[in-house]
Amino acid sequence: MADLAERAGVSMASVSRALSGAPGVSEATRTRIRTLAQDLSYTVSPDAARLARGSNGRIAVVTPDVAHWFYASMLDGIVTALHDSELDVLLYEVQEERERRRFFDELPARRQVDALVLIALPISDDERSRLDLMGVPVVMAGGTLGDHPHVRIDDAAAAHQAAAHLVGVGHERIAMINATGHWTLEYAAPSERLHGFTRALHDAALPLDPELVVTERWGSGGGAEAMSRLLGLSRPPTAVVAFSDEMAFGALRTLRRAALRVPQDMSVVGIDDHSVADMLDLTTVQQPVVEQGRVAGLLVREVVEHGAARSPYVTLPTHVVVRGTTAPPPPAPGALG
Amino acid sequence: MADLAERAGVSMASVSRALSGAPGVSEATRTRIRTLAQDLSYTVSPDAARLARGSNGRIAVVTPDVAHWFYASMLDGIVTALHDSELDVLLYEVQEERERRRFFDELPARRQVDALVLIALPISDDERSRLDLMGVPVVMAGGTLGDHPHVRIDDAAAAHQAAAHLVGVGHERIAMINATGHWTLEYAAPSERLHGFTRALHDAALPLDPELVVTERWGSGGGAEAMSRLLGLSRPPTAVVAFSDEMAFGALRTLRRAALRVPQDMSVVGIDDHSVADMLDLTTVQQPVVEQGRVAGLLVREVVEHGAARSPYVTLPTHVVVRGTTAPPPPAPGALG
Repeated sequence: MADLAERAGVSMASVSRALSGAPGVSEATRTRIRTLAQDLSYTVSPDAARLARGSNGRIAVVTPDVAHWFYASMLDGIVTALHDSELDVLLYEVQEERERRRFFDELPARRQVDALVLIALPISDDERSRLDLMGVPVVMAGGTLGDHPHVRIDDAAAAHQAAAHLVGVGHERIAMINATGHWTLEYAAPSERLHGFTRALHDAALPLDPELVVTERWGSGGGAEAMSRLLGLSRPPTAVVAFSDEMAFGALRTLRRAALRVPQDMSVVGIDDHSVADMLDLTTVQQPVVEQGRVAGLLVREVVEHGAARSPYVTLPTHVVVRGTTAPPPPAPGALG
Repeated sequence: MADLAERAGVSMASVSRALSGAPGVSEATRTRIRTLAQDLSYTVSPDAARLARGSNGRIAVVTPDVAHWFYASMLDGIVTALHDSELDVLLYEVQEERERRRFFDELPARRQVDALVLIALPISDDERSRLDLMGVPVVMAGGTLGDHPHVRIDDAAAAHQAAAHLVGVGHERIAMINATGHWTLEYAAPSERLHGFTRALHDAALPLDPELVVTERWGSGGGAEAMSRLLGLSRPPTAVVAFSDEMAFGALRTLRRAALRVPQDMSVVGIDDHSVADMLDLTTVQQPVVEQGRVAGLLVREVVEHGAARSPYVTLPTHVVVRGTTAPPPPAPGALG
C-alpha cells in the first residue's frame, strides 16, 4: 500500500479510504487511486483484476437454514439461474442470533461480493441500514425488503385458496393451524396467511370461531401439537388449513395415532407442495419455491450485469393441488347419513 | 502486468507463467515474481493479499443437488463447521453431465479456492487426475475418493442392521428395494447395501429369494413402483428393507393405496432417518448426515489450516430407530392365528 501511496502522492490513510469507499477523500483522488490500484492489481490474478474493475464475480446468498426443504429449494433455484453466468455463489447460514450479528458485523469486510440474495430472512432496521451503507445490491427471495428487488408469493392468496377449497367441498367448521417461530423479527407469512384464511371464511359467509385458530411453533412437531389441541375441543373442526406442509405432516401423524381417518373423518390441506407431499397424498397449495429462487437468481444477475432489474418486483402464483387428504365433511351427528 | 514484468526484469509471458503456476519458468524466478506481486497486490484489497499469500479464505463445496434432503443436510453440516473459521463457502451444483464437464473444465481457473469438498459425488479417473493436477486438497463427504480424506457411513452395515431388525421381530420372507440412478459413474451405496442385506439373511440362515430383490430408480417414485412389483409376486414378502427413507415413503404410499395395513400386513424399514421420517412413524436406520457434513468441514479446516488432517478417514456409526412401520409378520395362511 505504501507503494501505491507514493505513486499517487497521497497518504496511506487516503489510499485506504479511497479503496474502501470511506468518506474523506475527493472523488478525483479516489478515481486516480483506484485506477492506479487497478493497473497494479492486474499483475496478481484474474481475481484481483475483477476486484479492481469493481466486480468480484461472486454473489453472497444468506439463508437462515441450509438443510431445510424450503430454503434448500430456494438456494437450488438461485444456483441454477447462475449456472451459465460468470457469477459464483458464496453461501452464508445465519441461523442463530450470534451468527446473524457476526454476519452483519463483518459485512463491510465482505464487500468482495457483487450482490447479496437474502432467502426469506427478516432483517432489522439496523441491519438494513448496514446493507444500504455497503452499497451492495440486495435481492430478497421469498419476501420483501423495502425498495429492493424481490420475488415472493402472495401469502394471503395462498391461504385463501386453501380455505376456499375446503369450503368448496362442503366444510363449514374449518380450523387454521398457524405458525410462530424463534424469529426475533417480524415474519410476514403467518399474519398474511391468517388474513387470507379469515377472508375466505368471510367470502363464504361462514363465521370465524376464534377457538379454531391455533398457533404452534413452526414445523411438523408444532403441527402435531396443534392438531391435538383441535381434537380436544368440545366441537372439533371437520377440516384444517395448515400453515405449511410440514405442519400438515404433523397434523396427519396426530390423526393417524388417534385412529381418525383422513379424509373421511378430517380433511387436511397444507401450503407448499413439499418434496414429500405427493408421497403423503397431501392436498396442498403449491408455491413454486425453486422457481422463486430461479427468479431471484435472474434478478441478481440483471442487477450485477446491467445495474438494475427491469421488473424488480415479482409475485409468483400459487394453486391448489388436490390429492387424497381432502373430501366432503362427515355427516353431522344426528343428520341423515 | 507490464509493470511487474519490468520490475522483475522478465517477459510478460514469464510473469503470466509464474503466477499461474505453469511450467517454463525457474523456481527462483517464480518466487521472485510472486513476492513482487504480493507486494503490489497488498495495495488492492485483503482479498488480493490473501491470494498472494497462497490462501483465498474460501473452499468450494461441490454437490449433485442443492435441494435434496441428503445433500442439503451435508452442506448444512459443512457450513456449520466453518462458521467460526475464516473460510467462506463457494457452492457449486453439478447435477447434469454438461454442468459437470463445465465444472471440471473450469477447475484450473477455479484455483482461487483453498480446498474442495465433494458431497457424495462419484468422479471419473479423468476428473480425479484434474483434481490431483490442481494440487488443491479434496475432501469427500459421504463416500471415498482414493487417498483423499473422507467421512462416510458403512453402507453394508446399515443395510445389515435394517434386515437384522426385521429378522429379529420374526420375518423370514424379506425383500429389498434397491436403487439405481442416472449416475453415470459407479456409486458404491447400492452394491454395498445389497451386500449387507444378503449377509444379514445369510447370518440368520434364511434363503435369499432373488425375486425379492427389486431395483428401481432412486427416489420415492421408484420406491412406489418397486412396492407394486413386490405386491404382484405370487408370494409377496412380509417385510421390506428400502434403500433409503424416500424409497420407503413411496413404498408406504403404494401400500396405503392398496389398502394394506402397515405394520400389520407389511413391515417397512428405511435407511437415513430423513427429516420427515419421524412424522411418518417410519422405522429406519439412522445415518448422521449433518454430522458427516460437520466432520467433512472439520477435515477441510485441518487440511487448509495445518496442511493435513490428523484422522483423515472417518466412518460414522448407524443405528436402528424403531418406530411404527415394523412389527412381527402376520400369521402365515393356514397357520393357527
